[in-house]
Amino acid sequence: MMQAVVFTAATGAPELQDVPIPEPSPGEALVRVIRAGICNTDLEIFKGYAGYEGIVGHEFVGVVAKLNGPSESERHEINVGQRVAGEINLRCNKCELCNGTDNARKRNHCPERTVMGILNKSGTYAEYLTLPVQNLFPIPEGVTDQQACFVEPLAAACRIVEQSLVGKGSNVAIVGDGKLGLLIAEVLSQQDCSITIFGRHWDKMNLCPDKITKVFSDKSDELTKKYTDHFDVCVEVTGNMGGLMFTSAITRPLGTVVLKTTCASGGFEFNTSPFVVKEIKLIGSRCGPFDEAITLLKERNINVDKLVTKIYPFTDALEGIKHAGIKGTLKIQLCMG
Amino acid sequence: MMQAVVFTAATGAPELQDVPIPEPSPGEALVRVIRAGICNTDLEIFKGYAGYEGIVGHEFVGVVAKLNGPSESERHEINVGQRVAGEINLRCNKCELCNGTDNARKRNHCPERTVMGILNKSGTYAEYLTLPVQNLFPIPEGVTDQQACFVEPLAAACRIVEQSLVGKGSNVAIVGDGKLGLLIAEVLSQQDCSITIFGRHWDKMNLCPDKITKVFSDKSDELTKKYTDHFDVCVEVTGNMGGLMFTSAITRPLGTVVLKTTCASGGFEFNTSPFVVKEIKLIGSRCGPFDEAITLLKERNINVDKLVTKIYPFTDALEGIKHAGIKGTLKIQLCMG
Repeated sequence: MMQAVVFTAATGAPELQDVPIPEPSPGEALVRVIRAGICNTDLEIFKGYAGYEGIVGHEFVGVVAKLNGPSESERHEINVGQRVAGEINLRCNKCELCNGTDNARKRNHCPERTVMGILNKSGTYAEYLTLPVQNLFPIPEGVTDQQACFVEPLAAACRIVEQSLVGKGSNVAIVGDGKLGLLIAEVLSQQDCSITIFGRHWDKMNLCPDKITKVFSDKSDELTKKYTDHFDVCVEVTGNMGGLMFTSAITRPLGTVVLKTTCASGGFEFNTSPFVVKEIKLIGSRCGPFDEAITLLKERNINVDKLVTKIYPFTDALEGIKHAGIKGTLKIQLCMG
Repeated sequence: MMQAVVFTAATGAPELQDVPIPEPSPGEALVRVIRAGICNTDLEIFKGYAGYEGIVGHEFVGVVAKLNGPSESERHEINVGQRVAGEINLRCNKCELCNGTDNARKRNHCPERTVMGILNKSGTYAEYLTLPVQNLFPIPEGVTDQQACFVEPLAAACRIVEQSLVGKGSNVAIVGDGKLGLLIAEVLSQQDCSITIFGRHWDKMNLCPDKITKVFSDKSDELTKKYTDHFDVCVEVTGNMGGLMFTSAITRPLGTVVLKTTCASGGFEFNTSPFVVKEIKLIGSRCGPFDEAITLLKERNINVDKLVTKIYPFTDALEGIKHAGIKGTLKIQLCMG
């Protein structure tokens, strides 16, 4: 048996339970989880998002404990004892999207996919998990467990670059100073563009590289007026409609809005008018390239350690989850070791 | 003096009034309006949209009555007596957007612009209007007044092609069977793509070319399920959030949604989740190429006549406006001649 954080709609809250250690299916590895990260999506799942029930979590670093079948992952050999991160989308390998060669990320849209900790596949808040070997990426020496646990969200930040949404010399805004906003700031600061971050927390924004302009977003009409039509590209990471409407105002005509977080119109009027009138391109951006994220951690000294608020031993997982839900908290990690 | 339909917030309704015939500013032409078309945007303006007050309307065909200054329009010589249609965005000719050479349509986003019948420029529901000569396009013989009055909305439909949003062999959906939806159906049926229109009116959908598949959109879960992830490109022309959310469901992952009409979330929950999860590109599309629209009318036999519900003499303009507001009505034109 092993310990795992399980969510069911019936209880409506996460519970630390003893459950059986999973058996890897053919092509899968059993992975002993070393560390798991808490993402806002997980907190949404505890409120019923996506209707998911089961073991929660999708950020992790672990060590391969057992293989069931071939050991070839994404361009890598995976052996027992290997430290790994893992892609969260489990594809069917049969459909057109899984076999397209023009866009590696198409496979993430496989209609038969399951998604670890989100859709029909057990997650990472557990002592063990299983994943197809093809989803696993080796973590090189020199990248710590704490850093490796950021590979999944860092890859999501890298997706913006992969989608070629930020041109050379672009004037870019990041709207939102949460965990993902700060990771995006790290990634985009490696690009040849000028960046402004809009946030509600000076302490968070001050974690961003010096070259990034920080603006306290008081949601005032003056602020909106000052930056109207100002940016070529805006990355929306507030997760609320107010943020999206502010973003629509500060994007220039024929500019681009990158939607990184989901939001619903509850309590705030959404209006498509600025998008139509300014002919703005609004583009969704989800999971990204793990290899690129790992390279950034290994070679280019992306600093993710400063984003960790606290590490909880796994026995205190529920306390850690509670902490993650407090406004202003950055990354909470659960340590299984 | 001349007659014109004027809207003021104070009265909250359109009124047929006697007003002075306008004087063309330097670079402008005085145009005697022959016919004006009623657009849904005009009906929205009567409800307070965009806060516009003054002479309403932006679709027209007319004859040049007087010139004040040089006679060069968009690649055309304009003389008194010339029958013309006119671009509705009046640009400053000084800013970066007005002088960019990479995209003719950038000028429509001039931040100093006025917009005929919508923003600080008198509209077309009048016996005379003024427009910069550079906004005017000659209407060739063989295109009737009734047809020429469609140039502006037809150009808006052509904008989708100009934006290169419909690839060769694309599987395209048009969601909405209003006036603009039907014009888009006409334009896209000239492209090498397969088209399905979703609407609520068989009589309207049956006006579309035979090669277009017609689907009655009952907004049922079965319909959504049947067409989930089905289309490469979806053109949203319902103007309501329910339509936009249906569109988000039937667009395939990594597909494109073209926003042609504006809508607000009042009374219907809007959720960005499908756009993020499926990494959909959502793109606003507004005014388009007049020359292309005129060529379509002249050479390729686009049939717009079937979209006219009724023509009202200008003295009955208010009755015509009332008629245009009745559900199911297609194009109402006002005839000044």
